Amino acid sequence: MTSADGDDTGLLAPGWAGSPAATATGDTAWLQALLDAEAALTRAQAALGLAPAGAAQAVTRAADAGRFDVRSLAERARAGGNPVIPLVGDLTKAVGAEYGEEYGTYVHRGATSQDIMDTASMLVAARTLDLVLGDLDRTAAALARPASEHRDTAMPGRTLTQHAVPTTFGLKAAGWRALVLDARDRVRTVRDSLPAQLGGAAGTLAAFGAYGASDPTALPAAYARELGLRAPDLPWHTLRTPVADLAGCLAFTAGALGKVAVDVLTLSRTEIAEVAEGSGGGSSAMPHKSNPVRSTLIAAAARRAPQLAATLYGSLAAEDERPAGAWHAEWEPLRDLLRLVGGAARDAVELAEGLRVRADVMRAHLDLTRGLIVSERLSAELAPVLGRARAKELLTRLAAEGRPLAEAPELADADLDPTHYTGSAGALTDRALERR
Amino acid sequence: MTSADGDDTGLLAPGWAGSPAATATGDTAWLQALLDAEAALTRAQAALGLAPAGAAQAVTRAADAGRFDVRSLAERARAGGNPVIPLVGDLTKAVGAEYGEEYGTYVHRGATSQDIMDTASMLVAARTLDLVLGDLDRTAAALARPASEHRDTAMPGRTLTQHAVPTTFGLKAAGWRALVLDARDRVRTVRDSLPAQLGGAAGTLAAFGAYGASDPTALPAAYARELGLRAPDLPWHTLRTPVADLAGCLAFTAGALGKVAVDVLTLSRTEIAEVAEGSGGGSSAMPHKSNPVRSTLIAAAARRAPQLAATLYGSLAAEDERPAGAWHAEWEPLRDLLRLVGGAARDAVELAEGLRVRADVMRAHLDLTRGLIVSERLSAELAPVLGRARAKELLTRLAAEGRPLAEAPELADADLDPTHYTGSAGALTDRALERR
Amino acid sequence: MTSADGDDTGLLAPGWAGSPAATATGDTAWLQALLDAEAALTRAQAALGLAPAGAAQAVTRAADAGRFDVRSLAERARAGGNPVIPLVGDLTKAVGAEYGEEYGTYVHRGATSQDIMDTASMLVAARTLDLVLGDLDRTAAALARPASEHRDTAMPGRTLTQHAVPTTFGLKAAGWRALVLDARDRVRTVRDSLPAQLGGAAGTLAAFGAYGASDPTALPAAYARELGLRAPDLPWHTLRTPVADLAGCLAFTAGALGKVAVDVLTLSRTEIAEVAEGSGGGSSAMPHKSNPVRSTLIAAAARRAPQLAATLYGSLAAEDERPAGAWHAEWEPLRDLLRLVGGAARDAVELAEGLRVRADVMRAHLDLTRGLIVSERLSAELAPVLGRARAKELLTRLAAEGRPLAEAPELADADLDPTHYTGSAGALTDRALERR
Amino acid sequence: MTSADGDDTGLLAPGWAGSPAATATGDTAWLQALLDAEAALTRAQAALGLAPAGAAQAVTRAADAGRFDVRSLAERARAGGNPVIPLVGDLTKAVGAEYGEEYGTYVHRGATSQDIMDTASMLVAARTLDLVLGDLDRTAAALARPASEHRDTAMPGRTLTQHAVPTTFGLKAAGWRALVLDARDRVRTVRDSLPAQLGGAAGTLAAFGAYGASDPTALPAAYARELGLRAPDLPWHTLRTPVADLAGCLAFTAGALGKVAVDVLTLSRTEIAEVAEGSGGGSSAMPHKSNPVRSTLIAAAARRAPQLAATLYGSLAAEDERPAGAWHAEWEPLRDLLRLVGGAARDAVELAEGLRVRADVMRAHLDLTRGLIVSERLSAELAPVLGRARAKELLTRLAAEGRPLAEAPELADADLDPTHYTGSAGALTDRALERR
Repeated sequence: MTSADGDDTGLLAPGWAGSPAATATGDTAWLQALLDAEAALTRAQAALGLAPAGAAQAVTRAADAGRFDVRSLAERARAGGNPVIPLVGDLTKAVGAEYGEEYGTYVHRGATSQDIMDTASMLVAARTLDLVLGDLDRTAAALARPASEHRDTAMPGRTLTQHAVPTTFGLKAAGWRALVLDARDRVRTVRDSLPAQLGGAAGTLAAFGAYGASDPTALPAAYARELGLRAPDLPWHTLRTPVADLAGCLAFTAGALGKVAVDVLTLSRTEIAEVAEGSGGGSSAMPHKSNPVRSTLIAAAARRAPQLAATLYGSLAAEDERPAGAWHAEWEPLRDLLRLVGGAARDAVELAEGLRVRADVMRAHLDLTRGLIVSERLSAELAPVLGRARAKELLTRLAAEGRPLAEAPELADADLDPTHYTGSAGALTDRALERR
Repeated sequence: MTSADGDDTGLLAPGWAGSPAATATGDTAWLQALLDAEAALTRAQAALGLAPAGAAQAVTRAADAGRFDVRSLAERARAGGNPVIPLVGDLTKAVGAEYGEEYGTYVHRGATSQDIMDTASMLVAARTLDLVLGDLDRTAAALARPASEHRDTAMPGRTLTQHAVPTTFGLKAAGWRALVLDARDRVRTVRDSLPAQLGGAAGTLAAFGAYGASDPTALPAAYARELGLRAPDLPWHTLRTPVADLAGCLAFTAGALGKVAVDVLTLSRTEIAEVAEGSGGGSSAMPHKSNPVRSTLIAAAARRAPQLAATLYGSLAAEDERPAGAWHAEWEPLRDLLRLVGGAARDAVELAEGLRVRADVMRAHLDLTRGLIVSERLSAELAPVLGRARAKELLTRLAAEGRPLAEAPELADADLDPTHYTGSAGALTDRALERR
Repeated sequence: MTSADGDDTGLLAPGWAGSPAATATGDTAWLQALLDAEAALTRAQAALGLAPAGAAQAVTRAADAGRFDVRSLAERARAGGNPVIPLVGDLTKAVGAEYGEEYGTYVHRGATSQDIMDTASMLVAARTLDLVLGDLDRTAAALARPASEHRDTAMPGRTLTQHAVPTTFGLKAAGWRALVLDARDRVRTVRDSLPAQLGGAAGTLAAFGAYGASDPTALPAAYARELGLRAPDLPWHTLRTPVADLAGCLAFTAGALGKVAVDVLTLSRTEIAEVAEGSGGGSSAMPHKSNPVRSTLIAAAARRAPQLAATLYGSLAAEDERPAGAWHAEWEPLRDLLRLVGGAARDAVELAEGLRVRADVMRAHLDLTRGLIVSERLSAELAPVLGRARAKELLTRLAAEGRPLAEAPELADADLDPTHYTGSAGALTDRALERR
Repeated sequence: MTSADGDDTGLLAPGWAGSPAATATGDTAWLQALLDAEAALTRAQAALGLAPAGAAQAVTRAADAGRFDVRSLAERARAGGNPVIPLVGDLTKAVGAEYGEEYGTYVHRGATSQDIMDTASMLVAARTLDLVLGDLDRTAAALARPASEHRDTAMPGRTLTQHAVPTTFGLKAAGWRALVLDARDRVRTVRDSLPAQLGGAAGTLAAFGAYGASDPTALPAAYARELGLRAPDLPWHTLRTPVADLAGCLAFTAGALGKVAVDVLTLSRTEIAEVAEGSGGGSSAMPHKSNPVRSTLIAAAARRAPQLAATLYGSLAAEDERPAGAWHAEWEPLRDLLRLVGGAARDAVELAEGLRVRADVMRAHLDLTRGLIVSERLSAELAPVLGRARAKELLTRLAAEGRPLAEAPELADADLDPTHYTGSAGALTDRALERR
């Protein structure tokens, strides 16, 4: 095997392989973000008169991921425990060789590895969240359609796996959409809050002073401007709010899409078949199989995201000015969350856009319990007539007998049509669809 | 043993036993919240003309946890899988016996168990978060003091366990405070968003119509008003945003306080002793021991909270109109999170208010590396003189020799005073303390 | 509210409230285990001639949980961070008052709090695992019945929610039983390995020497003998193998029972109804509802156990001779796991013993796909005749047309009976049932 | 960017990048394992007379990962949700093209995707665990040296961050070794139990019968033999014992190595400096820094492994004959665990082999508390003379005064030498080192 054999190309990850989020979070993207951070640092120093404009130009030009060997950097990262250390060496050399030694000295000047690594994480997160936001918007838009089309399509409401009372498919789809919008709102808030990181070795900005800055506290804002990130209030090397916030909004999004997926999986069962994915996945051995693959992969992401987020929340308790382990434990779980959710959002778009709804099957299922699905209504209506206890007794007896309720003489006048017992489902759907 | 022997009084939980949060989240508090929800439901129906005022009064008066047997309810909950089912029976009986049968029929009318259980969870959460918010505010206030008093107290900045460059205790304490305020802001937002739950059996509000409401969609808002909770946009039986948001803000708070704790634990070590808890915990066998117990218990909470939150995030993927397991899996972890964080916030107040800071020890430690703690500054200052490479070479050699840098003739003119190399720590502290 | 209001009696836990495991893990049981450990320590010292026999008798008699105030201990535990510190004081006083001061001095002599706390945990674990083992055996026995009775009952095999090929209910039940036996074997191994803990303040047994023992290394084995636990190889204050092993076997058991539960939940769905719990849970509003409550509560436990186990695995990384947080973070999650699994095992017995199987419904479902459930067989049989590609093409076309396969002239001679295509299900069932 | 830009080469993973475990778990290794499984299946059928020997040879020859496009397979896996479906197509084509169409039909005959995927996971796991076992043995061997060399090197025992009583470095290292051996034993047991997977579409082996096998139950054992894996008792498509067992032993190993790492991190602190890594990691800005990088990376792995294991335990509750999500959620976490632990074990070898121990610093630290580190001994010795209460009172007073105990006239005759108070540390070390 060659040195590339340890690579992960997504073979175990049909949920994200080949997705835009995979590209946005791959090693090359991360390397580019590290380089973007280095270049922005030199430009920010130039903007404040702390570095020559030529150095800023030189570093910016040299900061192209295509010129560096990502695999070699990965392996050399081992010595110091992070990839920025070897990268600074390579970048300094590249700048020096092409644009002159004197410019090389401005690479990474005054910064610490964590400034660059954290900033790169925020850049990668911002770029991936933009993809996620787009896909959540598309998913919400796609779900609005069945919600309004099936505003009045009655179907069994199910609780603890059993038919309870009727609901509508419109209300169900409107609920899915509401959850997707909740996710979008949380992702949007976090995306807009992502800060650049700049503090130097222990977060005091001291080295920038040593290199001549009269007011080093102006530098982080200048740096953030170059990057399109928020200026940090304080260096956050061990104040990990941004990472925890990412964990929260990503775990939320995975779960929100997961809700849609588990509903589709349930309603797609051979015996239920009230909905179907637009194009199911096949099987090598069984020509008839049409599996709900999009939902399956989203559901898988929803099972994994909470534990990845837990690791990130656990890293909040980071000792000192840079912790020995808590920080390093963040990198892969953060990437995993970003690409898992990015992949799930892509799948959610396809799921929502392709979803096939079978109103006739829903209607037929409302009769499966032979009228019992409206027993709640009958309870309510019989109680004033017979008294609450006798009404309940009657219905319990009829339920036990297993005959269709319509045949019970006591219910001769009752409205047993389940489509008449969907309550405020329509009004609730309308209200939910007003949300933008 | 008696039937009380399975009880948990906090013997395994010095972190929360006896705390206000423990009382606010105990079974009695939960039972009272369930009863508050039932009473509010009848009152709301009365307010809309769907129930007689007398019924509202009767249910409200009967809804007193002291009159019900919580242990018996717990055991009878087993049959149907939740405690609301037996409670409705007991409450109906109590109302009927004391105020008349006709009022008993208005208990729980039109609702489903989950309406009551979820609403009670939100009430308990709101009450506990109010305690947490108070303690976070007190903690932040207490941390402001050392942050400003020690604005210029230099101490070693530590990265990966090793002295890096100097920082100040003021900046460290200001950072702790910033994280506590981040927690407060997140808890505040979630606390103000907690909604009542009302949807009926499958979330359509249908039963309220069957019982005569002309516009059942007005009921949830009336109900929420009675409870001081937010009116829900939709029934959220399987749209679990409120629970996930609680998970996120509580895991965040545990981690934020955990950061303070792990720093205090580190700085309290016998060899470091730069800070000490106000009153340490003793040992049965070793009279001299003074353990950092508050920090220890906070750190323990911070280790547990992320996984509890993970379970709650995992329950977002809840199938149907009521899931078979995902909902039931929320109850105890949510309570655990609330009381763990409630207890940790109590401990944080004591920790912050009692913290003893030893500026002299901090100062002494700055000399432990014999000048190397300012090697970054020397690198910066020597580079223009000697060139970057030769400067680094010189310092590396001096570091390896282990002699005090002050004795090196090459550094005769250098300012080796570590208290002069705290960078912008003071200015950053000032800025951080402006935040309210 | 009174000081008892923070108590947890199981109101939020229908899964374990009122169960033997709840009693075995309640605060009173834990207190008794702490006292058992103290008494065994004095007895062991007496057995080695390090304490008078009278002291051993006195401590043993005084060590009765009923004489101590568990709630007061819980609250006083806060000062030092664990309940053993106040308990030693109370026990010393009790022994001294009743049996003479001179015996009081032998209480806890030479031990550290963690010796007693860890030993008590092992006692509680052993007692609870014995209950679990009994229930796993009963569950396995109960599952053997449907496995052999329905050895040849064909039903749809389902993959990714869709009918695939036939299987048998016998094989399914035999698989459940195999998983339960896997759990039993893992629990049994761990139960038999649970060690006593004895090391003194830093695990060197030094204090026992100071109190006169010529060979303190003999003491742990004597102590373990008194307790019926395994003698430890080394003090394991920060070598947490026993706790991690408990985490593993309990998470496994929860998951194994969870597999049975999710299958029953699926097969109980109104549309599927191939099995039903013996006695379903009711609903306050819907008289007809019969919910699979046992499965629901087991499924809820299976959702929580992995994250509780994760916290315990995380505590393996415990610094020093006693860690500041990792140890304290173990206590409640370990108890939670024990009682969750204890409750789930109780529910599993009822589930397995009461399960109702509807062979006729299974048979009917085999026809739902109109023959396609045997398409794999047809592929295999047609391939040699038509060639693999043409066979697949034919079946895919027939599947798309949606007609019953039996009407296709090309399949006139084919055996389309799905009960003839259960492969080796019977033989596999027989083999699995041989395992004891 | 190109299609390779989503690749993960280890840039975010200095803990495993470039390690043998990375190569053993990379996509190429997984692809080869999938192909090994396919080839073994055809060979096993040939061995039982169900396929021509030529087919077995042809498939075996074609089953070379180098001939397939792993990235393309990853992307095509999306349609059906797993990579086996496109791989079977490619392999069939390759065999057919090179060795004749008739042999192509024997590829994957009778199997389901999960048979191949699960078997490949077990192959990859077995190969990686062999690496882990080797490294655990080397680590244990390396730790035996300091354990015996420093059998009598006294050092402070630390509890809750404070000096407690003396211990020895020998006992500490022996404890580390014991934990590593516990890990090795658990990994060994699991490694030897890993089964092949073979069941066909729903685990009944039915297709093999359709293709002519008279006793399909003989096939799994023949298949397992070809692979060097254990023959399964039953198809385990949804009986996930092997995966859960892997989760348990890997989380355990990560934690066991994590214990060593957190101890080394603590003891390496600038103020403590009792041990140091053989070659610390550097810093770009601070020439003097020598960071404990190996420990840091191991500690990071120990923080992540429990949550990855939790996801795998969570997948035990897998519905039906193949679940829609639980199975798919296993693949990446299992790989992550394998390579994280593989990388940590590599780091542990270097850590253990390079560890530098400073007995003189340990000795000096024993005096930091001015005698109080032996206060437990003094308590024990003074109690018979002064009575327990007065002895404690005296020591508490002396501790509070802060004077060296040696100056207290009451202790004139006491042995205050902390190196004389290491108890049975030596004997315990000897005993622990006897374990092989």
